[in-house]
Amino acid sequence: MKGFAYFLVAVVTLTGVVYMAQAFGRSDREADPVFGITIPPGYRDWKLISVAHEEGNLNDLRALLGNDVAINAYREGKLPFPDGTIIARLAWSYVPSEENNKVFGRAQSFVPGPTTNVQFMVKDSKKYAATGGWGFAQFKEGKSSGAALLKTCFPCHEPVKARDFVFTHYAP
Amino acid sequence: MKGFAYFLVAVVTLTGVVYMAQAFGRSDREADPVFGITIPPGYRDWKLISVAHEEGNLNDLRALLGNDVAINAYREGKLPFPDGTIIARLAWSYVPSEENNKVFGRAQSFVPGPTTNVQFMVKDSKKYAATGGWGFAQFKEGKSSGAALLKTCFPCHEPVKARDFVFTHYAP
Repeated sequence: MKGFAYFLVAVVTLTGVVYMAQAFGRSDREADPVFGITIPPGYRDWKLISVAHEEGNLNDLRALLGNDVAINAYREGKLPFPDGTIIARLAWSYVPSEENNKVFGRAQSFVPGPTTNVQFMVKDSKKYAATGGWGFAQFKEGKSSGAALLKTCFPCHEPVKARDFVFTHYAP
Repeated sequence: MKGFAYFLVAVVTLTGVVYMAQAFGRSDREADPVFGITIPPGYRDWKLISVAHEEGNLNDLRALLGNDVAINAYREGKLPFPDGTIIARLAWSYVPSEENNKVFGRAQSFVPGPTTNVQFMVKDSKKYAATGGWGFAQFKEGKSSGAALLKTCFPCHEPVKARDFVFTHYAP
């Protein structure tokens, strides 16, 4: 009887572990429907390429991070970017910081509000030959933003063909 | 005679190497005159804490990077920050991006211009007990911005004592 109780506990535990693994796997692993890109594990730990503020409809503060292939290419001024390059664009809504402004005595400090979405550019000159060698992805809360949006990425990046379709410069 | 020529080349080369090592060492190693902080090697490779835009006299785009002690403390919500924490604040002048705006068809994109200066907060609760456990440093092109400026750091950070004197929140 005691053996059976242990067995039951083991089955329940194992079921839980498998379920959680699937659940986490599902949210992290949804591929974008055009380029088949999934969120790269550990991208939040990548090194900084640059930052920016976009006004207009975007109205965000953003940080560009790169995997090691990206960072090395940027620092060496290597163009085109080599296969394996991944550039991550994080963005947060652009909000005034009331606590900072109180200290400065005026409204001057703007900081990240909630995350808007995260984008990736993945270089694979063969797989993505039709779009300049780049795959594009955008995720909001782990879910792809869908095919209609992704088809607008490459046309927008085309004007910066001379910089291998990448807008962002490295900020020293 | 051939041997002597090799010897001469070796001496000249070695002199050059020693000179360059000293020159690089000198610019990287100037300590700030109040807290004795030098620029931490490799800080540009540290992980991202957050970004911000400051208007007014500062008029910059900035990125906050942290060493591993800082990043772990932020992610675990650990306060006060443990000894060994270093927070780096990079900043660049806030400039419109003409090349981006041409693509968007309107003035909306602001990007980093030239570097303004780099600041560091270093946690050592014993050494810097008189200033909340933090040492403060600012460098411009490798040179400390001087004692008068550094004495203004702690008074400005005092209002955020409840967050261990650190303004910046972690941006997920």
